[in-house]
Amino acid sequence: MTVKLFVCTTCRAGETLQDGELPPGARLHAALVAGDVPEGVSVTPVECLSACGNGSAIALSASGRWTYVYGRLDTDHVPDILAGAAAYAASADGIVPWRERPQIFRKQSIARIPPLER
Amino acid sequence: MTVKLFVCTTCRAGETLQDGELPPGARLHAALVAGDVPEGVSVTPVECLSACGNGSAIALSASGRWTYVYGRLDTDHVPDILAGAAAYAASADGIVPWRERPQIFRKQSIARIPPLER
Repeated sequence: MTVKLFVCTTCRAGETLQDGELPPGARLHAALVAGDVPEGVSVTPVECLSACGNGSAIALSASGRWTYVYGRLDTDHVPDILAGAAAYAASADGIVPWRERPQIFRKQSIARIPPLER
Repeated sequence: MTVKLFVCTTCRAGETLQDGELPPGARLHAALVAGDVPEGVSVTPVECLSACGNGSAIALSASGRWTYVYGRLDTDHVPDILAGAAAYAASADGIVPWRERPQIFRKQSIARIPPLER
């Protein structure tokens, strides 16, 4: 089953962009795609996650699992985001034991949503 | 198809509770259940939506639709929340035209997440 790692590519994260400069969210997406993406995880760009006050934002989601939204992320966080995505993909229900979550996932959660089957 | 209106019943919304007092999230859940719940919408309690800094929080979700998370809600917002849930239920993909959204849904969005099928 595929886990979706949604990445907001329009997130400006409070920055004022120069002409032609990519938004921080698009840079984060590019860095994630270029990273060591875990098997079973699909990095998927999204135009807006409506978490603009907490950009850059990502979400992890899969059928039958809790969805998690995280914010205030940048390209320095790519290894931790991908490690967190791998742990999420390895979980049965999307709930990764607290100690196994990267610190950014413990500290920078915006919201979580139960699976529909709940 | 059923739309889920998830309500965080543990949200304290910054309040210090007296012994035996229900958290604001539980009071919001009770008021929503007692309200004019639209057909096709299931009000579903959840123990934590991890949006504690923006409580009380709710989420609207359905298969094949965008999920929306809203915060800083209380029992005064029940009619607007239920009207917003009805508009969401009537939409094809969860995206309600901006002008048809209750003001609380325009101003108090925490995040939105695409459908998995995207």
